[in-house]
Amino acid sequence: MKETVIIELEKPKLKNPVLIVGLPGKGNVGRVAVGYLVHQLGARKLAELYSPFFFHFVMIHENLIHMLRNEFYYHRGDKRDFIFLIGDCQTYDPKAHYEISGKILEYVAKFGCKEVITIAGFETGRIVEKPSVLGTATDEEIVKKFEKSGIDFDPSKHVSTIVGTAGILIGLSKLYGMKGLCLLGETSGFPIVTDPNAAEAVLEKLQKIVGLKVDLKKLKEKVKEMHAFIRKLETLQEEAMRMMKSKVKKSEELKYIG
Amino acid sequence: MKETVIIELEKPKLKNPVLIVGLPGKGNVGRVAVGYLVHQLGARKLAELYSPFFFHFVMIHENLIHMLRNEFYYHRGDKRDFIFLIGDCQTYDPKAHYEISGKILEYVAKFGCKEVITIAGFETGRIVEKPSVLGTATDEEIVKKFEKSGIDFDPSKHVSTIVGTAGILIGLSKLYGMKGLCLLGETSGFPIVTDPNAAEAVLEKLQKIVGLKVDLKKLKEKVKEMHAFIRKLETLQEEAMRMMKSKVKKSEELKYIG
Amino acid sequence: MKETVIIELEKPKLKNPVLIVGLPGKGNVGRVAVGYLVHQLGARKLAELYSPFFFHFVMIHENLIHMLRNEFYYHRGDKRDFIFLIGDCQTYDPKAHYEISGKILEYVAKFGCKEVITIAGFETGRIVEKPSVLGTATDEEIVKKFEKSGIDFDPSKHVSTIVGTAGILIGLSKLYGMKGLCLLGETSGFPIVTDPNAAEAVLEKLQKIVGLKVDLKKLKEKVKEMHAFIRKLETLQEEAMRMMKSKVKKSEELKYIG
Amino acid sequence: MKETVIIELEKPKLKNPVLIVGLPGKGNVGRVAVGYLVHQLGARKLAELYSPFFFHFVMIHENLIHMLRNEFYYHRGDKRDFIFLIGDCQTYDPKAHYEISGKILEYVAKFGCKEVITIAGFETGRIVEKPSVLGTATDEEIVKKFEKSGIDFDPSKHVSTIVGTAGILIGLSKLYGMKGLCLLGETSGFPIVTDPNAAEAVLEKLQKIVGLKVDLKKLKEKVKEMHAFIRKLETLQEEAMRMMKSKVKKSEELKYIG
Repeated sequence: MKETVIIELEKPKLKNPVLIVGLPGKGNVGRVAVGYLVHQLGARKLAELYSPFFFHFVMIHENLIHMLRNEFYYHRGDKRDFIFLIGDCQTYDPKAHYEISGKILEYVAKFGCKEVITIAGFETGRIVEKPSVLGTATDEEIVKKFEKSGIDFDPSKHVSTIVGTAGILIGLSKLYGMKGLCLLGETSGFPIVTDPNAAEAVLEKLQKIVGLKVDLKKLKEKVKEMHAFIRKLETLQEEAMRMMKSKVKKSEELKYIG
Repeated sequence: MKETVIIELEKPKLKNPVLIVGLPGKGNVGRVAVGYLVHQLGARKLAELYSPFFFHFVMIHENLIHMLRNEFYYHRGDKRDFIFLIGDCQTYDPKAHYEISGKILEYVAKFGCKEVITIAGFETGRIVEKPSVLGTATDEEIVKKFEKSGIDFDPSKHVSTIVGTAGILIGLSKLYGMKGLCLLGETSGFPIVTDPNAAEAVLEKLQKIVGLKVDLKKLKEKVKEMHAFIRKLETLQEEAMRMMKSKVKKSEELKYIG
Repeated sequence: MKETVIIELEKPKLKNPVLIVGLPGKGNVGRVAVGYLVHQLGARKLAELYSPFFFHFVMIHENLIHMLRNEFYYHRGDKRDFIFLIGDCQTYDPKAHYEISGKILEYVAKFGCKEVITIAGFETGRIVEKPSVLGTATDEEIVKKFEKSGIDFDPSKHVSTIVGTAGILIGLSKLYGMKGLCLLGETSGFPIVTDPNAAEAVLEKLQKIVGLKVDLKKLKEKVKEMHAFIRKLETLQEEAMRMMKSKVKKSEELKYIG
Repeated sequence: MKETVIIELEKPKLKNPVLIVGLPGKGNVGRVAVGYLVHQLGARKLAELYSPFFFHFVMIHENLIHMLRNEFYYHRGDKRDFIFLIGDCQTYDPKAHYEISGKILEYVAKFGCKEVITIAGFETGRIVEKPSVLGTATDEEIVKKFEKSGIDFDPSKHVSTIVGTAGILIGLSKLYGMKGLCLLGETSGFPIVTDPNAAEAVLEKLQKIVGLKVDLKKLKEKVKEMHAFIRKLETLQEEAMRMMKSKVKKSEELKYIG
């Protein structure tokens, strides 16, 4: 496996689908928000994405081997269909964000997808009751379309970049003839694994925009359930990254392999 | 040589072969266990695997050039055949575990291989007379099949990941339509090069599972023979890795090359 | 996106075009000089270059997503045409300077381009009223041709290498059957973002050589306009590079993604 | 340029050529020895090798752009022909030693080359009048053939690995159906750029083996001439490597590019 692969599980026809992406990141806002949608909508698994640029370990989960992956789900809506992308991880390799984003966009393009929304968090260092939601897009047109939705399309006062796949996906979407939007939920940035408040704030705006109506009442409960798994994943990846970057201590690192 | 290559030495027809993998790692449990099987069974060399992601040196062994490699062997059993994979090293490059594992699986798939077993060690920090053997698999079905073999299929209390090729091979095996099992032998983790006790414990379980009957009496003796070569290999690789990660000291590193 | 791509926006026929390259670097001499030409000449956008070897973030600029890129422009001259290359960044990856330079040269070769001029800065640690301009080329012939232009073709007393795309482009140009010239403007090297004096000095020489006549009076004013954007880009890239090279601090780096 | 390329300048037919390789390394023994042969024999340039895995700068040499490269030369002998490979540098990237070595072997295979000899240095920390020459090969047969030549084919007491292209070339040669030999000249390892004594010692043995008769009297004089260029190259590469591995100092590294 020399490059990122997408293993297709189903080949449905989809009606003008929008891709909604929630990968791990700050406060796990995107991961938690989109994971909740997938769960509540009972969305069907569409495909799995594996990459040599994910960490070089497999996780033992419920005593079985779990390989790091991203997962596509789909849901049939009334007016249009939805593709969701969630996952265990992002790549640790800067250039691989481009490869993986390209693969994702090529894949959803086959379903006629023309719009991509990624969800992430932004840190403010303060805890608020009602987190704000920032938006930024590839085109002025999108901003115009949604500026009355309560999304703050003047993000520059808080953020100047979107790092990783959540950003590169949007940036590249334009090259694939798509329109891209990134929604950022305010999160304190304190060492918390998941921030359901931020996820909820983003989901409220997102649902308005794309025409979904999922009850958000069970979000906190669901986040609690996801918490242990996400926390474990994070800890393992942090360890792996520290190992990859650390200097070798004699007789130690090589033994670590295998 | 831009990617991992497998040089085929023979092209036998094999009967429902199982791949059994023992690469260097903690306590060299896998390397020693599978190396012993290859030796005692008089298994024939099937192929050699070379990778640009192995270290960039050749070793001088018995005064000849020895290039770092992994080796495939095969053995004809009564009911089914066996492919063994052993080797001098694993890659130092995280992404290359995926490339190398993919090449291995593609290769054995040509022989109709449907099952992969990797052997590795896990550290407990204590020395025990009778090391325990943990197991984890890609499918619940495998666990069911072997849970009465004395393998502990509840590994989570001791290990949460399997790092390197031993793990990625099992994880990827599913994508190649195979079933994967990893057996982990308990080893102290004290700075020892090889742990014949852990290897013996794993071999006892492995033989039951796959239907091999190799006398394990000569294992300790054989491990002693392998010891010097394995130790030399390890030392050289540790040095190479330290060199690769260290900062350059003026007039030093470049001179090291060649 | 596994490799650098050039997205063509127009496909004009060009008359014996010369490629003039000004990418970010010391004092941003090249970026500012060529950016000014593009602006004053009203050159048309020809193509955009994107690379997985640019940083893995998108920038938020004027509240829209801005993906890091290089841009080709063209201008029709009296006797010959011009292709300009400017951009937000260079790659951080040593080998990618070769890939990107190769892509650039293949692209301009399609227009019949036979000459490449890159512009960069060299540091002297002193502030001068009239910065000197050094030149170095692939062929003695070019030196002969322009040695009376006031360019100092004896650069060795100040510089011994040209690092990055400005250098590799010239080096590779020979392999593509082209002739290459690098012009270096003297800049103090003090922590300034842009050095309009150096840019002006180079532009004076460049215009003589290639037969352009752009009024340089508005250069300082234009540089002031570009300043904020260039400064922001630089700060973000410095942060990204520091992040990429730094050791991981627990619970920090992974959260940074997304 | 995504991978190593060899630019062919001539396409001669060669008679059973042997490849003799002298790249930069310890004491520059190989570089100096083979460079001297090329010069004294008036060998003709055959091809140039460029690689994206060489450093990302061009050197200014005699006020022209000099791109880092390796060079093939050929010389017609009485009984057989010779291909020489010398160069400015080796790659800094571990995996690229494999790519570059593979390209070299594929290229010389087209001329019917069946034998490869690489020349390098080994350090002993002592200064001797008459440096010893060690040898190690891919096959016992080669050892047998040359063991009466005064080459010490019991290198293990001094060296346990051959690092870089000098080693990987020999290791890979076997996979290309060739036989490989590495000759190592004893050098003190003190901070000297070039060691003509070691080069002379190796050349004496090499000439016997391959049937060359080049007067070695002018070697020291010639090494003096090469000294300045080699020293400059080394200093620049050391700086580049230090830069690549160092942590970024704010506002510094990015400015260094270009």
